[in-house]
Amino acid sequence: MKGTMIGLVKEVRAPGAVLREIPIPECGPDEVLVKIKATSICGTDVHIYRWDQWAESVVVTPNVFGHEFAGVVEKVGSQVSNVKMGDHVSAEGHMVCGVCKACRTGNAHVCPYTVSFGITAPGCFAEYAVVKASNIIINKKDMPFEIACLQDPLGNAVQTVLSGDIVGKSVIIIGTGPIGLMAVTVAKASGAGMVIAVDVNPYRLLLAKKMGADYTINSREESMVDAIRSYTGGEGAEVVLEMSGFPDAIRDGFEVSASAARVSLLGIPTQEVPLDLSRHIIFKGLRVEGITGRRMYQTWYQLKGLLEQNRIDLKLLITHTFSLEDYEKAFELMISGQCGKIVFLHDTDESLSSLKECVIHG
Amino acid sequence: MKGTMIGLVKEVRAPGAVLREIPIPECGPDEVLVKIKATSICGTDVHIYRWDQWAESVVVTPNVFGHEFAGVVEKVGSQVSNVKMGDHVSAEGHMVCGVCKACRTGNAHVCPYTVSFGITAPGCFAEYAVVKASNIIINKKDMPFEIACLQDPLGNAVQTVLSGDIVGKSVIIIGTGPIGLMAVTVAKASGAGMVIAVDVNPYRLLLAKKMGADYTINSREESMVDAIRSYTGGEGAEVVLEMSGFPDAIRDGFEVSASAARVSLLGIPTQEVPLDLSRHIIFKGLRVEGITGRRMYQTWYQLKGLLEQNRIDLKLLITHTFSLEDYEKAFELMISGQCGKIVFLHDTDESLSSLKECVIHG
Amino acid sequence: MKGTMIGLVKEVRAPGAVLREIPIPECGPDEVLVKIKATSICGTDVHIYRWDQWAESVVVTPNVFGHEFAGVVEKVGSQVSNVKMGDHVSAEGHMVCGVCKACRTGNAHVCPYTVSFGITAPGCFAEYAVVKASNIIINKKDMPFEIACLQDPLGNAVQTVLSGDIVGKSVIIIGTGPIGLMAVTVAKASGAGMVIAVDVNPYRLLLAKKMGADYTINSREESMVDAIRSYTGGEGAEVVLEMSGFPDAIRDGFEVSASAARVSLLGIPTQEVPLDLSRHIIFKGLRVEGITGRRMYQTWYQLKGLLEQNRIDLKLLITHTFSLEDYEKAFELMISGQCGKIVFLHDTDESLSSLKECVIHG
Amino acid sequence: MKGTMIGLVKEVRAPGAVLREIPIPECGPDEVLVKIKATSICGTDVHIYRWDQWAESVVVTPNVFGHEFAGVVEKVGSQVSNVKMGDHVSAEGHMVCGVCKACRTGNAHVCPYTVSFGITAPGCFAEYAVVKASNIIINKKDMPFEIACLQDPLGNAVQTVLSGDIVGKSVIIIGTGPIGLMAVTVAKASGAGMVIAVDVNPYRLLLAKKMGADYTINSREESMVDAIRSYTGGEGAEVVLEMSGFPDAIRDGFEVSASAARVSLLGIPTQEVPLDLSRHIIFKGLRVEGITGRRMYQTWYQLKGLLEQNRIDLKLLITHTFSLEDYEKAFELMISGQCGKIVFLHDTDESLSSLKECVIHG
Repeated sequence: MKGTMIGLVKEVRAPGAVLREIPIPECGPDEVLVKIKATSICGTDVHIYRWDQWAESVVVTPNVFGHEFAGVVEKVGSQVSNVKMGDHVSAEGHMVCGVCKACRTGNAHVCPYTVSFGITAPGCFAEYAVVKASNIIINKKDMPFEIACLQDPLGNAVQTVLSGDIVGKSVIIIGTGPIGLMAVTVAKASGAGMVIAVDVNPYRLLLAKKMGADYTINSREESMVDAIRSYTGGEGAEVVLEMSGFPDAIRDGFEVSASAARVSLLGIPTQEVPLDLSRHIIFKGLRVEGITGRRMYQTWYQLKGLLEQNRIDLKLLITHTFSLEDYEKAFELMISGQCGKIVFLHDTDESLSSLKECVIHG
Repeated sequence: MKGTMIGLVKEVRAPGAVLREIPIPECGPDEVLVKIKATSICGTDVHIYRWDQWAESVVVTPNVFGHEFAGVVEKVGSQVSNVKMGDHVSAEGHMVCGVCKACRTGNAHVCPYTVSFGITAPGCFAEYAVVKASNIIINKKDMPFEIACLQDPLGNAVQTVLSGDIVGKSVIIIGTGPIGLMAVTVAKASGAGMVIAVDVNPYRLLLAKKMGADYTINSREESMVDAIRSYTGGEGAEVVLEMSGFPDAIRDGFEVSASAARVSLLGIPTQEVPLDLSRHIIFKGLRVEGITGRRMYQTWYQLKGLLEQNRIDLKLLITHTFSLEDYEKAFELMISGQCGKIVFLHDTDESLSSLKECVIHG
Repeated sequence: MKGTMIGLVKEVRAPGAVLREIPIPECGPDEVLVKIKATSICGTDVHIYRWDQWAESVVVTPNVFGHEFAGVVEKVGSQVSNVKMGDHVSAEGHMVCGVCKACRTGNAHVCPYTVSFGITAPGCFAEYAVVKASNIIINKKDMPFEIACLQDPLGNAVQTVLSGDIVGKSVIIIGTGPIGLMAVTVAKASGAGMVIAVDVNPYRLLLAKKMGADYTINSREESMVDAIRSYTGGEGAEVVLEMSGFPDAIRDGFEVSASAARVSLLGIPTQEVPLDLSRHIIFKGLRVEGITGRRMYQTWYQLKGLLEQNRIDLKLLITHTFSLEDYEKAFELMISGQCGKIVFLHDTDESLSSLKECVIHG
Repeated sequence: MKGTMIGLVKEVRAPGAVLREIPIPECGPDEVLVKIKATSICGTDVHIYRWDQWAESVVVTPNVFGHEFAGVVEKVGSQVSNVKMGDHVSAEGHMVCGVCKACRTGNAHVCPYTVSFGITAPGCFAEYAVVKASNIIINKKDMPFEIACLQDPLGNAVQTVLSGDIVGKSVIIIGTGPIGLMAVTVAKASGAGMVIAVDVNPYRLLLAKKMGADYTINSREESMVDAIRSYTGGEGAEVVLEMSGFPDAIRDGFEVSASAARVSLLGIPTQEVPLDLSRHIIFKGLRVEGITGRRMYQTWYQLKGLLEQNRIDLKLLITHTFSLEDYEKAFELMISGQCGKIVFLHDTDESLSSLKECVIHG
């Protein structure tokens, strides 16, 4: 596969990105070349686009960024046996060493030697991408590309929701960005009792409701702690899924957790958070789970089962689609928060009619 | 509460039962007296009615039998603090000692000193029943009595489904009696992947389909093993819920289980079952769970969460209702297998309109 | 059992305590009366003795305090079936309601209606104590009373050590008070890999070494973080047992935890602790467990197995014994930190020779 | 590395084996060449040597067999990064595909595409062996080779013992072959309560006692069921580790298991075993675990922690050492059962004095 392609490139270590004509990447013996059909914008991509402190310290440049994708395999390396030409695929973005202690004990998601697709290695906001064969996830051919590209963040939601017991338990989801919204539907599909979503963004709270939240709380308009105590009969929430990263929200999450609750932390605070460990964690006998990435690959099998049997439906979540050329509009919209998940359709000649009815704008 | 009531009594140690006028039972200091509103027939009640070997060895006579009920508290013993007059209630039927090792380590469901409501102690096929306060489960007042009385067998289904991981996994349910049918809906509501129900009874397989089974297999008409291999792409089932008790079905369940599968056994075989332990359990790295009763009381909180948030709907399961006077018809129908769950309405003056539309016969 | 006895009473809401002649308590129908043989001083008792803010907010007065004991049953209430006269016993000090959600789901240790023996109810620093029968733990008659009275704090250590996997893992124990010292021996007896104890008190670090710590770190003399990194080949500790309650130590514990580690918090900080949740918990995929009390009663069965089969030996831990009359000396010594566990022998006529050789008598 | 070496070869599909001069194997890019220092005889090797039905159906010929080894790396393939020349190493013998569902979900030990070192691929009863780098386990240089070669079967014991909770629980180990004997010491080192070993071989029961069994039962001389009931106060065993494969012993193991017990099956019966599932598994609420291989690679880290911190000592287990030339004597002795573990020392010029004192030499 010689030739060039168009890719969205983070070129300079400053805000913004540019579309460039670049070489189609070479596919190594243990890699596959994928023709990209759909990609989606992760919060991480926004950090890269806006170039904040985290981006400065982690991201390589110049680099094609983006890591959430679905596509079709066009070329397969000589040592690859688990993928073949024409397969519809997505991928786990954490490329890990495979032989360290973390990798060997079911904790590959925290492998210290991780290389990240689209962050510290070339990604998917382009016509083609090269992916390590071991990381490939094969999709059923009847799964729409726009849905398939969402599996990576869906994995974060699944991993958070299922990092402890969930059936019949009262659940609060703090922060209804795309992963929080996915967590709403995953929690319900996994047998959660009452599901309460909390945010300050009315657009997203409305989406949370549409995706199945039993109650939503706008924590600018009412006390989250009071409201949840009221909904749960004074007991507090048995499962707290923290997806906002805001220190005050995190503290409120601990405050309103029930005795023996589980608090799973996915949102990433950018400063230290003072916690009353005695009252919030010790005397309550709480469990706290730090969540990063996805279990490799249990989480993928869990989400596949949910998606393929239609236990969850992500169509409502995709509020807007764009072509990659309109990336600036897409990123601005993402920054505004007036959206659910934004998908880039890389192949505009294909009909994506299955989704048309659910697109709110765009 | 002095006076008499009508109760369905197992009087002689032989097939049958009789309606008798008997004293309303006395309520001790740690007990409550419940006015019964609805009860349902368990397979165990059929064993008692027909008087088989198990009944002969276990059941006391004369005794009011029946253990699945919903009612309203009419009297509360002097030491009782967790229940009050007017509460809508059901109960866990295993009355356990509370101080043995099993009880003290989360295994009260296998307490060797268990006394069983309706089996070795007076039960609920009557106008009133006395229940140990510690065993009372309080129902929300908007839960229909006909649904509330099903919580006990629902607990068996929940305990079986959740005796291991379920989200996204392929599940087979062998035996679609009422608990098997409940397991279908509980598995789906808990995030199972493909759910396949197996039986030889077309009536119940149809019900299984209505309650959400993705596929049903009539194992008289096709090979269960072949069919499941085909549905699961050759891999076999990741979760096998055995609810039939038939030796051949149990063996087929092990045969068709995937590597590293979980097999939960609830159905009670009446003879020894020869198993190829090497091939079926050891080389596959299988886990087998023996299921009896319900976790006291985690299971009840799980099923409450599912019911109260409408994650499951048991209305379809109630195919017939009777008054207690028609007990003979009810038991004959139960024995015929041409039914789902059969409910006795003890209080015919109450309208139960919410269910009317779903009753198939009656 | 009429008459009077000598008891150590917290009489006024201020520092100190007094020995008083008081009535022998009445034994209710579900209680037993125990002749106390040995008791031990818990850190909690020191809080009560010194009367700090926690004591002011929680402790009832006047009250016989003390909750760690061993004794012999002298009288049994009319409803009691699990204990008999002459039994050697200790007790779980958390008297819980038994019917709330926490109690019914294996979390009785965080029952919101807990009454605490020796804190909010009369305790054991006296000749006799009355104990709820349901809370009684029966000891083998060959277990020395001085050892048997240590089972309550041993339970805290066992619960902390076993709140996650331990076999083969590197373990640090921060804070070598009596429970920390017990954790050293429990961790080793439970198959821990490298066990490292950290404190600032040389006396207790020496004890930690004697009780089996593979390494000890005086964090006043060397950097705990550097030392542990060095011992663990840079990886950090896979299990962190925090038993000091000091904010800096807690932060260092998180700092030096390995990826996918478990951090169990038992020590009770008296102020908020600022944590870098992103770096310390989220990106590492950490699990944090808040520990309070003991699992009722799994923990007791675990510690019984360890003690009765001599997998652990607590004799070395008892550095000093006193008669109750010398309580002031005992409390002063406890406050000084120049001791392990201090035991009161309530029955001076009994020979306790089995322990004599190991008493250090400072 | 060109040239020839001496290897023990299974040449014909019939009993026996022969020493042959064969080429030193070529080391591929993802492999390492190991100079073998010590190997040990597994029960599987005896099956291959004697050539039974299992061997006929599974084993390839001609083949160097043997899979338990310790050695030193002499050559490293071009793509290998986790091993270097001079490393002391052993290896996991299951060479798995790495990309199937089992491999990707923590169940690589049941990967359907497994190739087995020394069984379906060349093994270690030779001067050199080639091993897949991903399977290499690096040993500390102070670990004697004779001990290091035992880590593979030790893994089976660790995996069996730790396939459920163990601390404080009563444990029976049925079958005291080498893995059973290892299980005795692993169970004790992991905090088991009472450990009872059962066999019919007095030599091995004596070894079990030496390795720490609290009680031993010769089931030819007394009823295993009666004896265990007596030792456990009538309760039965909370953990049953079945390592014999004999149908009657397996049935007795279920019979004598306590309520809510765990039964882990490692021994491989060669015929079907009739089980009373109702009484033995369902009504007791039992869990059964099928054990094969070792968790890849959690088990290895667990056993490393135990070995490196001297929580277990395997020296007593090595009752005999031989040079490879004396293989016939070694296999005959193994078949006789009058031994513990038999080790081949491949490098007779090295002093192995550390072990000398413990060799019983029958």
